[in-house]
Amino acid sequence: MAQALALAARGMCTTDPNPRVGCVLVRDGQKLAEAWHHRAGEPHAEVLAIAAAGGDTTGATAYVSLEPCCHYGRTPPCADALIEAGLARVVVAATDPNPRVGGRGLERLREAGVAVAFGLLSEQSEQLNPGFFRRMRAGLPYVRAKLAASLDGRTAMASGESRWITGAAARADVHRLRAQSSAIVTGVDTVLADDPQLTVRDFTGDFLPPRRVIIDSQLRTPPSAGMLSDQQGVTIIHGGTMPGREPALVNAGAELWEATLEDNGHVGPTGVLEALAAVETNEVLLEAGARLTGAWVQAGRVDELIIYLAPHLMGNEGRPLLELTGLEQMADRLPLKMLDQRMVGDDLRLTLRVGDREEG
Amino acid sequence: MAQALALAARGMCTTDPNPRVGCVLVRDGQKLAEAWHHRAGEPHAEVLAIAAAGGDTTGATAYVSLEPCCHYGRTPPCADALIEAGLARVVVAATDPNPRVGGRGLERLREAGVAVAFGLLSEQSEQLNPGFFRRMRAGLPYVRAKLAASLDGRTAMASGESRWITGAAARADVHRLRAQSSAIVTGVDTVLADDPQLTVRDFTGDFLPPRRVIIDSQLRTPPSAGMLSDQQGVTIIHGGTMPGREPALVNAGAELWEATLEDNGHVGPTGVLEALAAVETNEVLLEAGARLTGAWVQAGRVDELIIYLAPHLMGNEGRPLLELTGLEQMADRLPLKMLDQRMVGDDLRLTLRVGDREEG
Repeated sequence: MAQALALAARGMCTTDPNPRVGCVLVRDGQKLAEAWHHRAGEPHAEVLAIAAAGGDTTGATAYVSLEPCCHYGRTPPCADALIEAGLARVVVAATDPNPRVGGRGLERLREAGVAVAFGLLSEQSEQLNPGFFRRMRAGLPYVRAKLAASLDGRTAMASGESRWITGAAARADVHRLRAQSSAIVTGVDTVLADDPQLTVRDFTGDFLPPRRVIIDSQLRTPPSAGMLSDQQGVTIIHGGTMPGREPALVNAGAELWEATLEDNGHVGPTGVLEALAAVETNEVLLEAGARLTGAWVQAGRVDELIIYLAPHLMGNEGRPLLELTGLEQMADRLPLKMLDQRMVGDDLRLTLRVGDREEG
Repeated sequence: MAQALALAARGMCTTDPNPRVGCVLVRDGQKLAEAWHHRAGEPHAEVLAIAAAGGDTTGATAYVSLEPCCHYGRTPPCADALIEAGLARVVVAATDPNPRVGGRGLERLREAGVAVAFGLLSEQSEQLNPGFFRRMRAGLPYVRAKLAASLDGRTAMASGESRWITGAAARADVHRLRAQSSAIVTGVDTVLADDPQLTVRDFTGDFLPPRRVIIDSQLRTPPSAGMLSDQQGVTIIHGGTMPGREPALVNAGAELWEATLEDNGHVGPTGVLEALAAVETNEVLLEAGARLTGAWVQAGRVDELIIYLAPHLMGNEGRPLLELTGLEQMADRLPLKMLDQRMVGDDLRLTLRVGDREEG
């Protein structure tokens, strides 16, 4: 199963909106074949593994990192393929959180006389697909917020100067994060201040370009913004009709989505995430400023913080890591849980869960 | 030699003002004896090892983590003891930075016909004794500054509330740091705000209580301060005669040292460190607020930062990690070098060298 999970991970940047799934076929202690799901619309891992075994699969055991599907989606159901291939046993890590599958894939196999087991390394299979599981269960994407700061928690000098806080290795690591994300979300203030490209560069390997999203309640994005110049598509989520501003942005190639404004006059995280889930967005990378990221954190809409800490001191006049309102007493602190900490070049990368609840 | 260094480390909290030194005696691939220096005034590691071997040391090799002394200090010279013990060979990690020894210990051994080698794991021997080496070479102690902050780099809430930022494991780790320090230095503002004890608690093992030092230019320390109530001694470094304030503090048990005020009206780090070096202080732990610690960092008087980062967000209204003045541009940033990063309980402990120069 560990092998099936490692295979699944090879689809890290290409399976959207499908989950990453791997499969290993074994008989008499010998591996017959292995495969992983590459891309939505193409065959699933189980079907690829059966094909790779060249027809000789009778009595074999399949280790699959996610429950085989039992419905006709873009491809025929994998449960049927496993039954037809004469498998004796199917071992599954996680059952499918998709309500159209939800244990019925295993049921179908059992009814056909295939022995079934599940639960082995199920947590790892979920961790490999946090966005897919979240979307199937809660109808929302999984959100990572990326921040870069000095060791004293500053994201820019008092002057606003901030390039580059981190080193080349950390910046390349961000491109890997982007490549595995379904969408990259930023705010119009970041567009106006930094005019970022938010493309995947400096990354070797196959990937689906993530959707680039600008949250821009008042449509202040200039049609000359760098993101609109590269033909890779930009989605701007705004707060209603702004006569005169829409045509220029649409002509510049932007896709405009309207969202309801919250009481504070801003497009809020829930509206953005529901809209993204509606187009099957699994994993969102938030790359925005201290105010927007802070607001999302306080709204409980950030699942994971990824903070690159550079080995520098920028001083107390520098810009803060996050703007968080109403934290007066120690009891008001927002709890985090450290999931991972490691050096990336000269910088320290911290991965933290937001909130102290267990993930699920 | 690795064993000799591990033995040396057993004197981590007790050898002041002497260095930590270990010794292993070997003959024909067999270990004859091992020892480490425990305490100033007591025998050195080499003498203890020879005694432990029970007189049978002829032709043996001694691995010593620091060059044997050749002068009469509180104990007779170790070089002579090694010669008398009939050693065939002495392997030394680091040569002694003490100008009274400085290679002369090895010279004396060579003259007596003992084979000599040095340099093996010499850096590790230095790292075990950063304060001793610094004091012998530069006439100043080695300074570590300890800070505790939330992940967004805040040391207190806007209200000033700050207890406790870190968990019990991190706080116990600070007591270990204190135990291995020769002096703990704080500022009067911290005394007035937090009234800390700055004693070694929550630590099992032998240690010399570090000298507690308050930097207090105007003698504002209240005679009722917690540190003055426990009979463990407090040194207050002030800026000149303050009639009326001195007697109460002296009666309360404080030792008062006068230092020259710098142009800004404060007692500066150099004066404090020179005074501490004059009483053979090897390692200083600075446990002060953002202003004092920031000033020492900017004066180039902090060698190492030890930062405990708690898995919380305290918000942009919270108090900064360090007050650093005049940092306007990215080029003004103060560089650090990450030496170590590890979890201590739920908190992350970072050890950083201040400046990007190599240590030496």
